Amino acid sequence: MKPVFLYDTTLRDGTQGEGFQLSMLDKLRIAERLDRFGIDYIEGGWPGSNPKDIEFFREASKLDLKHAKLAAFGSTRRADLAVEEDPQVRLLLEASTPVVTIFGKSWELHVTEVLRTTVEENQAMIRDTVRYLKENDREVVYDAEHFFDGYKDSPEHALATLEAAAEGGADVLVLCDTNGGTLPEEVLEICTKVKERIPGTPFGIHTHNDCELGVANAVAAVRAGGIQVQGTVNGYGERTGNCNLTSVIPILQLKMGLEVIPALEGLQALSYFVDDVSNNPHFARAPFVGRTAFAHKGGMHVNAVQKLARSYEHIEPQRVGNSQQILVSELSGQSNILIKAEELGLKLEKGSDEAKSVLTRVKEMENAGYSFEAAGGSLELLIRRELGSYEKPFDLKEFHTSYRLYRDGHQPVCEATVKLYVGDVGEYTVAEGHGVVNALDKALRKALLPFYPEIEEVSLTDYKVRIIDGHDNTAAKTRVLVVSSDGEHSWGTVGVSENIIEASWIAIVDSIDLFLQRRGVLATKSADTPSAARA
Amino acid sequence: MKPVFLYDTTLRDGTQGEGFQLSMLDKLRIAERLDRFGIDYIEGGWPGSNPKDIEFFREASKLDLKHAKLAAFGSTRRADLAVEEDPQVRLLLEASTPVVTIFGKSWELHVTEVLRTTVEENQAMIRDTVRYLKENDREVVYDAEHFFDGYKDSPEHALATLEAAAEGGADVLVLCDTNGGTLPEEVLEICTKVKERIPGTPFGIHTHNDCELGVANAVAAVRAGGIQVQGTVNGYGERTGNCNLTSVIPILQLKMGLEVIPALEGLQALSYFVDDVSNNPHFARAPFVGRTAFAHKGGMHVNAVQKLARSYEHIEPQRVGNSQQILVSELSGQSNILIKAEELGLKLEKGSDEAKSVLTRVKEMENAGYSFEAAGGSLELLIRRELGSYEKPFDLKEFHTSYRLYRDGHQPVCEATVKLYVGDVGEYTVAEGHGVVNALDKALRKALLPFYPEIEEVSLTDYKVRIIDGHDNTAAKTRVLVVSSDGEHSWGTVGVSENIIEASWIAIVDSIDLFLQRRGVLATKSADTPSAARA
Repeated sequence: MKPVFLYDTTLRDGTQGEGFQLSMLDKLRIAERLDRFGIDYIEGGWPGSNPKDIEFFREASKLDLKHAKLAAFGSTRRADLAVEEDPQVRLLLEASTPVVTIFGKSWELHVTEVLRTTVEENQAMIRDTVRYLKENDREVVYDAEHFFDGYKDSPEHALATLEAAAEGGADVLVLCDTNGGTLPEEVLEICTKVKERIPGTPFGIHTHNDCELGVANAVAAVRAGGIQVQGTVNGYGERTGNCNLTSVIPILQLKMGLEVIPALEGLQALSYFVDDVSNNPHFARAPFVGRTAFAHKGGMHVNAVQKLARSYEHIEPQRVGNSQQILVSELSGQSNILIKAEELGLKLEKGSDEAKSVLTRVKEMENAGYSFEAAGGSLELLIRRELGSYEKPFDLKEFHTSYRLYRDGHQPVCEATVKLYVGDVGEYTVAEGHGVVNALDKALRKALLPFYPEIEEVSLTDYKVRIIDGHDNTAAKTRVLVVSSDGEHSWGTVGVSENIIEASWIAIVDSIDLFLQRRGVLATKSADTPSAARA
Repeated sequence: MKPVFLYDTTLRDGTQGEGFQLSMLDKLRIAERLDRFGIDYIEGGWPGSNPKDIEFFREASKLDLKHAKLAAFGSTRRADLAVEEDPQVRLLLEASTPVVTIFGKSWELHVTEVLRTTVEENQAMIRDTVRYLKENDREVVYDAEHFFDGYKDSPEHALATLEAAAEGGADVLVLCDTNGGTLPEEVLEICTKVKERIPGTPFGIHTHNDCELGVANAVAAVRAGGIQVQGTVNGYGERTGNCNLTSVIPILQLKMGLEVIPALEGLQALSYFVDDVSNNPHFARAPFVGRTAFAHKGGMHVNAVQKLARSYEHIEPQRVGNSQQILVSELSGQSNILIKAEELGLKLEKGSDEAKSVLTRVKEMENAGYSFEAAGGSLELLIRRELGSYEKPFDLKEFHTSYRLYRDGHQPVCEATVKLYVGDVGEYTVAEGHGVVNALDKALRKALLPFYPEIEEVSLTDYKVRIIDGHDNTAAKTRVLVVSSDGEHSWGTVGVSENIIEASWIAIVDSIDLFLQRRGVLATKSADTPSAARA
């Protein structure tokens, strides 16, 4: 048996977070992915709260889950209503999941002020509902809402509600720090008390991050003997979010030696997957899985990491699917630049004039708003230019974009023209697109294709816009980051301008330019015989 | 005397984080702000690592700090060099700060593999440097780098380095979890051991967030008797960042009863200030200070919070300068919409057809990519339209934007034209701008100004672009969020389109439209006498 079971509530509690919305299809995809990763329980939703969740459970029953058990979430029966008459409880059974999770009230304040019933009736609601679900052959998880606040208010009241759930036959009693205000030492102490008082039923933990202690509180509960940890991928959830499974899983496995996931190296991919599906930006500073979680910027750290990786890394990044990054930035000593150049396979000598001028240029451009941390492609071009291993693929003469919107007519028209020279041969092209940047990208490719047919292999895979100075209204500076791929490799390029169109242009040109430099196709071109290039 | 001193290293360790860059002026502004907020120590930089920091200390000595002491950061003397000969140590004294913080090596691995010296020489380096700084009348903070890793490797070695610092006369021994891999229980245990072994010198704590335990580890150290907490505002810093002072401060003060800051209600403003100065986006889910830290989305929670705020809030948001938010979204029951309408001073009856149709419309628009959580202005317009308390200020006929870039000529030309009607009167205007959206904003205002001179009071104060679906390259959907102000109130509006220009247009039009609805100036206009409006 596993020492600790993982219970994911991304699909339910996660969707209570601002900006975290999932369609039914999204939920199905995430459920499947959680199962493959090795999560033990997947809470799919609350059938009693919205029709989308009822539909989800209908569809989810067709999923081919290999390991995880699906759980439907709901509440205890209403006050003064027989449990078998309660429509919300009926919906829980109709979800046809092997597991049902119900929450009940632990805090006297909530019983009297929110539910507006008596302490005795509240206990009966818990006991009856758990028993009824057990009679219907469900594994029952009892979520003791506000348990820690309730305990601090009245230990006897809170413990009596747990006893009611245990009497009903609950399989596990999950202690919830619903408001996220409890400290780890309190969690440890209170969990220990619960274990002493109710030794016959195991307990689990459900925490929130309101004090930035969601993970620490879950760890404290496991130390006290907890056997189930509830949380969400990337910590999404109401207010400040839930316990971040993406952090607590590697702590349990790598720091505490508890085997909870068979292949932990899938962790970063899972984190990105949930961000992508929910259309949320990746949080670069996220522990374990963040883009910068193993990124070294200070010149001294970079030096030391080169000598000995574990000198500034608490685990091997590969164990959670991450990797070491050397950031090139303002604080860069030459060693960051040299390492980056080496990664790129470019020869840059320590202390050389080229290395110094690359560094100077990087700092100048960063002052102007550039950021090379996620734009290795633009940095590579910059180094190539300094090393002289660069050949200009074309000269831009001008470009023009136009966008016309008619209120009572057809679709908006987005059009771009590009005028450029490759050697002495001029090209003047026009294209339409979904937007002006898309049109511009198309017109540029159209102009270059006769000379460089290889660019057909290149496609844009990501396009991000960031306003880097919001103080000057719409005239603020814009940074555009483009990720391109040729099917095998991908690379990031960056452009900065007061104008989003020009910033996009710079990033797109860099993207194609770098591809051509790497392919080394430029030297073979004769400027005045574009047809030869096609041969 | 304060029970715990706060030591901020945003200006030094913070700037090791990706995307966290500060100019010298930025650093001065932040230092002043930290002082006013009540931080005890401000670490300004490492004069030995870059010339910007030397300049900073020169300028910082002119700041009128009311409370905080400035600290210069550096390392112990080099191996095999007399301390008074060490140029890096000399720069520390030349910074002329009342406090100097030096770090030394606690982990044998680092002594032998990174420094490549002996254990004895390492201890001498620590002892000599501390003593020399004390002889020069500095308050000396000794940062024991990698202390916990070093202790776990060899307690005797790690403790001997602390003893060397204590012998040199250090004022405080700061135990650093440099790699962020230590668990709170280990911190508690090891800090307790340090206190037993070296009772004569107090200790402090410096943690990193690599396991999402930076705050928990600092709290554990304070429990063990630590008297100084080091960290950064918003947790900025290398890799996953430093201990987040913005979380640990309210925990110390509100949860542990330690008076560390005189006016804690300035906390959220400090957090936003540092984000703004460093040009970083606000992290909405940040504990205590985040935009959603006290935001309620689930219908049930919204209900309960209305009955009793503390039912889902662990502290009063006002105590840290934050406030309660009711989010309108997909999960909204009618009660969220009703509360929001009430906040806006609009009468919307529970269960009414209007309330239902507002909810339906919100859900439709959210499916299309809209988000009203930060765009209360657009939501207000939507409610007004459903209630019939809305009058259309103008009819758009068409608009056009054009952007032309010349490589070998003058500045790019951004131009927009707008054709619209107010009643029967047509206007056709053209304007140039810094970018096409800026030009469009100007052309629109130019067209409306004769009819609605009030709009001169409205200005755009923020403009944000978010790509909400990166799967379709440059044709992805774009959400534009605009914040406007009339000098007294500010409001957010939102536009979504495949095209950034159209999305911007929608958000800008909503912004002006809402202003006009609120002012109630529409009904007074006679469509064919614009001059009357000016009277």
